[in-house]
Amino acid sequence: MTTRDRIYLFDTTLRDGQQTPGVDFSVEDKIAISAMLDEFGFDYVEGGYPGANPTDTAFFTEKRTIKAKFVAFGMTKRAGISASNDPGLATLLQAKSDAVCFVAKSWDYHVKVALGCTNEENLASIRDSVEAAKAAGKEPLVDCEHFFDGYKANPEYALACARTAHDAGARWIVLCDTNGGTQPNEVSEIVSAVIATGIPGASLGIHAHDDTGQAVANSLAAIEAGCRQVQGTLNGIGERCGNANLITLIGTLCLKEAYASRFETAIDPERLSGLTRLSHAFDELLNRSPNHQAPYVGASAFATKAGIHASALLKDPRTYEHVTPDSVGNLRKVMVSDQGGKSNFINALKRRGIEVAKDDPKLDHLISIVKEREASGYAYEGADASFELLARRTLGTIPEFFSIDGFRVMVERRFDSLGRIKIVSEAVVKIVIDGESHMSVAEGDGPVNALDLALRKDFGKYQNEIDDLVLADFKVRILNGGTEAITRVLIESTDGSGVRWWTVGVSENIIDASFQALMDSVIYKLMKNRELAGRIAAE
Amino acid sequence: MTTRDRIYLFDTTLRDGQQTPGVDFSVEDKIAISAMLDEFGFDYVEGGYPGANPTDTAFFTEKRTIKAKFVAFGMTKRAGISASNDPGLATLLQAKSDAVCFVAKSWDYHVKVALGCTNEENLASIRDSVEAAKAAGKEPLVDCEHFFDGYKANPEYALACARTAHDAGARWIVLCDTNGGTQPNEVSEIVSAVIATGIPGASLGIHAHDDTGQAVANSLAAIEAGCRQVQGTLNGIGERCGNANLITLIGTLCLKEAYASRFETAIDPERLSGLTRLSHAFDELLNRSPNHQAPYVGASAFATKAGIHASALLKDPRTYEHVTPDSVGNLRKVMVSDQGGKSNFINALKRRGIEVAKDDPKLDHLISIVKEREASGYAYEGADASFELLARRTLGTIPEFFSIDGFRVMVERRFDSLGRIKIVSEAVVKIVIDGESHMSVAEGDGPVNALDLALRKDFGKYQNEIDDLVLADFKVRILNGGTEAITRVLIESTDGSGVRWWTVGVSENIIDASFQALMDSVIYKLMKNRELAGRIAAE
Repeated sequence: MTTRDRIYLFDTTLRDGQQTPGVDFSVEDKIAISAMLDEFGFDYVEGGYPGANPTDTAFFTEKRTIKAKFVAFGMTKRAGISASNDPGLATLLQAKSDAVCFVAKSWDYHVKVALGCTNEENLASIRDSVEAAKAAGKEPLVDCEHFFDGYKANPEYALACARTAHDAGARWIVLCDTNGGTQPNEVSEIVSAVIATGIPGASLGIHAHDDTGQAVANSLAAIEAGCRQVQGTLNGIGERCGNANLITLIGTLCLKEAYASRFETAIDPERLSGLTRLSHAFDELLNRSPNHQAPYVGASAFATKAGIHASALLKDPRTYEHVTPDSVGNLRKVMVSDQGGKSNFINALKRRGIEVAKDDPKLDHLISIVKEREASGYAYEGADASFELLARRTLGTIPEFFSIDGFRVMVERRFDSLGRIKIVSEAVVKIVIDGESHMSVAEGDGPVNALDLALRKDFGKYQNEIDDLVLADFKVRILNGGTEAITRVLIESTDGSGVRWWTVGVSENIIDASFQALMDSVIYKLMKNRELAGRIAAE
Repeated sequence: MTTRDRIYLFDTTLRDGQQTPGVDFSVEDKIAISAMLDEFGFDYVEGGYPGANPTDTAFFTEKRTIKAKFVAFGMTKRAGISASNDPGLATLLQAKSDAVCFVAKSWDYHVKVALGCTNEENLASIRDSVEAAKAAGKEPLVDCEHFFDGYKANPEYALACARTAHDAGARWIVLCDTNGGTQPNEVSEIVSAVIATGIPGASLGIHAHDDTGQAVANSLAAIEAGCRQVQGTLNGIGERCGNANLITLIGTLCLKEAYASRFETAIDPERLSGLTRLSHAFDELLNRSPNHQAPYVGASAFATKAGIHASALLKDPRTYEHVTPDSVGNLRKVMVSDQGGKSNFINALKRRGIEVAKDDPKLDHLISIVKEREASGYAYEGADASFELLARRTLGTIPEFFSIDGFRVMVERRFDSLGRIKIVSEAVVKIVIDGESHMSVAEGDGPVNALDLALRKDFGKYQNEIDDLVLADFKVRILNGGTEAITRVLIESTDGSGVRWWTVGVSENIIDASFQALMDSVIYKLMKNRELAGRIAAE
């Protein structure tokens, strides 16, 4: 085996990621995230800008990583004063970090407009700051801001900035595409030009932004050209369109032959199966839904809906997967839908314990019902339980546990005795069990909640069976706009056993669509109880 | 000016985009989306697979585009039967399309495993299908499935498939990275190798998937290497991690100097400022929140939070923007301070004809109300009319046209005299105008429709003013799942003048949220009428 070049992973989730509109980390968030990053195996964890705000200052009162180098970010010393007299630099060097990453202007235009100093003063600030960090026992890094745009405008000056940082002893000179508009072939050319001046690739990093959707491609182009450190964030958060997504880059660097054969990272190969969990845990912490279409880790990354693809996939998964889902801790999914062929259906049924022969005419009947219903708005791929009920009804038998005689839902807005607006939702449901009528009434937070409460208030002999049923989530989608709107409702239910199931209802009336989904949920629960009882009896 | 090469934009939102888990287009959706694509200036609109499912079959009973070529997708003829005897091919050729895009296997392993025929039979299927399409008066295209993986496994056979399609007269041979795992430098090498065999780049297309986050980079690498057609989808939807995002590619091809100087597309440069609107309109249709971090069109794409960046940005926006936000119809956002927020508000109000002084305390009051309401679920970004009403109420005065005494909505499910299920929705609304009570009742297709009809049934002296008011669209989003769900309703209204406006309502009760949005719509209409009358009187 040939020696592979080491690629250093630098995470800036807590610093550049903090610039994401809508993201605001607390000190506790930062502690939790730095622990996740450290445990996973990143080389550098940039924690923020001590001195710039109270959160970052508090976060840097302690070193927060064990294996990873803990990095404080800050500006080079100001022009016109010495390094030892700059209070900002002093705060930065006193922070409890292993390394300091200085942001330095490398586009002459910015030196003039943003810093208001001379080009030479800026070079002196870079040199003096790097030397001060070394003297304080820190590993110095320099982020060359706007390096690519600066290089295009004035290559000599951009190179002078990088060279000054290198000669002063910076461990890494990081080439930043701050505006995010540089294209991969430009990155490749400019990195090669820098290396040609004598700064080794082993001292160069890349910091890319996603403004043209190419932060990952730009990072890989820089690595191909010789950079050996890559900066990015978890799930690609960051200013504007975000930074390079390190989750995606890790998948590609570690699993794609073109990279894995030539490069290695500090991440233990066994840890790689935790990639999906890392990505989702971070979204949990941000309290947002994970991106289903995220490379490697998205819920859809290994999902197949197409009939022709699905049947080949089942014959040999490798034919439709560029890496295996379990290598990153993800799952393969084959979904039932409008697009599905017969083999899709048979497999979907098999997974639910329903055996059916390929030539059974009832199967064709089921497929045509599903296609018809999906054309009218049902979405069985998102409603497993309703699909299973429909299949069992069509292929075999489900006992008729109860029937519905009717329901009535009322929403009223009026003034109460103190003149305040009052909104009341009330539902009445009439069900028949073994010929006996059960009529219930309930009030709720809204009409669907009232209907749910009334439906499950008196279920006669089944009551104790459904006591642990909980409505966990509720989604509404208007399928076509305007006055002839069709409404689709998806309901997620769960019970004491922790199992979760989804049911669907479709109607021009939102209340009726909700009722259908609620009914399916209750019937599924009763059926599930019987299956479980049957299995226990058989044992 | 030198001649620029023409790049053809091929949209497959309605075909490959349909493979996205969770996306299910109805025929009405497809009609709306194809009209959007056609109007924007795409060269090809692939509508689906006629014969594969009822939706696509219905969609292809008419030609759905005016300028763009309307494309039907389908498989090449089956091996072992002649083209004229293949019922699938016959259905495909009978569809009302301008062009037919055949999917053809080009990886010998897939020919064996998925098709179960010989390599030669597959070549014959490609040739005969292309010829049959030509004979039927259609423009033939061939999607070479798994081309890149196939080329790596057996370059001769992959090339033979492309060559056969080309020699049979296919207008485009599209090289597909079906599994999405190919890297940009591999795309570049393989496209060059294909062109070296004599198939001109002017006949080659690229179809990339985002499984390593590089669908856009792969598409651009293929264009650099010579491909002149690029396939993708709106907002990058598609199977697994999605297809190449055409919104992003259009931004880059039309605005980035490296491409715009060498290539041109069919998109009228003046249309480009509609890119953000196109992207958001598509998300609206999918009823999902737009990705804030999307390149070019995301709400955060030109947003700056950082103090240092923000102050330089205000000195000269070009220093921190790789293209200007207005070139794609997006907006610059600076979220630095109250000050930045304030000027944003003043500008938003000015656009609506509302003048307010920067130091007016009512402005601070308005900002705090908007922030509070947005935190509780209101989305004023999508509800211009509700924002304007709130601003006018807070800053100045809006006459109290009427007041609401209350409403009652009832939905009942019962059996009619013939034993059929019957669902009735009825609403009663009590409004007071000039101290006089007006009570109306109406039945509707659902509770919101009934409420809308009852609300507008008797508006006393205002009745003739609101006669042309039409509810054009209605959207519901559940903001947080589970039992404490908050519902947000957005309503789009229009009138005889063709003006459209959006209003919003938020409540734990979906009926109440709908009522708020309906009320705002009527009040906005009355206010608009008065403004118009005032302007006419002043002239």
